[in-house]
Amino acid sequence: MNFEVFALGTSGMMPLPNRFLTSAMLRRDGDLFLFDCGEGTQVSLKMLNLHWKKIDKIFISHMHADHVTGLPGILMLSSQVDRTEPLVIYGPAKLADFVDASRRILDMYINYEIIVRPVEEGVIVDDPLYTVTAFSLDHTKPCFGYVFEEKKRPGEFHPETAASLDVPRGPLWGKLQRGENVTTPDGRTITPDMVVGSPRSGRKFSYVTDTLYLPKIARFVENSDLLLCEGMFTGDMEDAAKEKKHMTATQAGMIARDAHVKKMGLIHYSPRYSDAQLRFLVDDARKMFPKTILTRDRMSFPIALKD
Amino acid sequence: MNFEVFALGTSGMMPLPNRFLTSAMLRRDGDLFLFDCGEGTQVSLKMLNLHWKKIDKIFISHMHADHVTGLPGILMLSSQVDRTEPLVIYGPAKLADFVDASRRILDMYINYEIIVRPVEEGVIVDDPLYTVTAFSLDHTKPCFGYVFEEKKRPGEFHPETAASLDVPRGPLWGKLQRGENVTTPDGRTITPDMVVGSPRSGRKFSYVTDTLYLPKIARFVENSDLLLCEGMFTGDMEDAAKEKKHMTATQAGMIARDAHVKKMGLIHYSPRYSDAQLRFLVDDARKMFPKTILTRDRMSFPIALKD
Repeated sequence: MNFEVFALGTSGMMPLPNRFLTSAMLRRDGDLFLFDCGEGTQVSLKMLNLHWKKIDKIFISHMHADHVTGLPGILMLSSQVDRTEPLVIYGPAKLADFVDASRRILDMYINYEIIVRPVEEGVIVDDPLYTVTAFSLDHTKPCFGYVFEEKKRPGEFHPETAASLDVPRGPLWGKLQRGENVTTPDGRTITPDMVVGSPRSGRKFSYVTDTLYLPKIARFVENSDLLLCEGMFTGDMEDAAKEKKHMTATQAGMIARDAHVKKMGLIHYSPRYSDAQLRFLVDDARKMFPKTILTRDRMSFPIALKD
Repeated sequence: MNFEVFALGTSGMMPLPNRFLTSAMLRRDGDLFLFDCGEGTQVSLKMLNLHWKKIDKIFISHMHADHVTGLPGILMLSSQVDRTEPLVIYGPAKLADFVDASRRILDMYINYEIIVRPVEEGVIVDDPLYTVTAFSLDHTKPCFGYVFEEKKRPGEFHPETAASLDVPRGPLWGKLQRGENVTTPDGRTITPDMVVGSPRSGRKFSYVTDTLYLPKIARFVENSDLLLCEGMFTGDMEDAAKEKKHMTATQAGMIARDAHVKKMGLIHYSPRYSDAQLRFLVDDARKMFPKTILTRDRMSFPIALKD
């Protein structure tokens, strides 16, 4: 059951030749979840050669042009595959207005149902296999971070233990694995906890941009396997970042450190930094959190099953 | 006085890795004129390293997403230079709605005046040095082609003739060049037509996409130095093209031939054609008009002064 995050773009404000606007795609067991959608998103998807047209859900951080102007193109191209399920797009209140205006003014051909759901802080998707949680950030307009987290999987089944308890191999093993009590042929009751380990953690991906540094972010993204986090400016620009309601790479590193994430990828770089200068951002973040990655467009982050 | 057209994108419908959406920039003596603005336009401008932020006028063919979704980004980035003149955007009636909705929903920071002018067929810009003419095309929604044409320049001044007429070199030569009569020291009247050739033609650039084939197009783009023209499909797909209200490359070639243009560049290719297959489009167009160019992203077309 694969779980892989693709950085589709890493630039903030404006797309550059090697840096499309900040966007990420999570592919989980064939389902696709898109986070933000600026200009260039569909080009990166094409370059990655993902079968991307059937996106399941889209999560928009906030309604600034550099995070949404790729959406009309994605919605139109999503009409080129058969789909029976609606596409659900989550985001701030103005998202519905943007989607409606785009459809009305641009006469977009859409052959499937689009559902726009305004989000508030809290669990916004509760699927049997995963949840998505939104949490409010502090930017120049309403903005949300998102946490995608798999629910716990049943623990590992230990066949040797089952055998040593004289539970015959066959249907009884399956029942125990599914969490049911069983009765052995000689009348003993065996409960799952005797032969199955503790439930195994799911995988967790968090996506955070654009915002002031807020200590609460670490709480929401705690223990993420991957955190993609805005680090727009170098650490020396903290005042300028604050004024523009953005974060420095140093602050992104503090969040990653405080949240004990496994790995943090910086995103949403200011176009003021040349490709060669991006290492200054990473250097700053690494002072706080050594496992910082310089995310580049179309980089992928596969996350293995745990235990 | 330079006059150069840059193809910023050549793809129709969706942007591809090597083909951003159809858009072109004319640079004339430092002034910039943009034709259409889909996703990727600003990336091509950046790659060309043009000082593009001070665009003078933008001309939008029609209100489909693949021709306008790059506009909010261009308008915002245009706030990063000092400008006192307004930016005028010409296009179909719904353009004003699109610009208004984008500004309202996306909170775009704009520090200059934007004027949106709905166009109808006819001369839409009459500058002392050039005109821009719009003409209606036949697409699934209101759509316009545009012709940018310099006005005639004064004819060439012939110093040998002036000398042979005993007009002394100096201020009198300047007056004749500016079209004024002069009196020689010995009392003769010399008129400009005696020493200045006939007025010299200006340069002409035409931009045509998306449309059914219409014979009238050739009339409007007649004698263009450069025609950028939709040739979305190969000639064998004429019926499909007609149904979708697009043109084949063959039809683009017919227009170029009938209009006696100097050069025609195909644009707005269907994404169904791989880069290698684009030559089939050019082959079809060249059967009608041999001086067809396979336009590629960021190709430039300098057009020299005439005579």
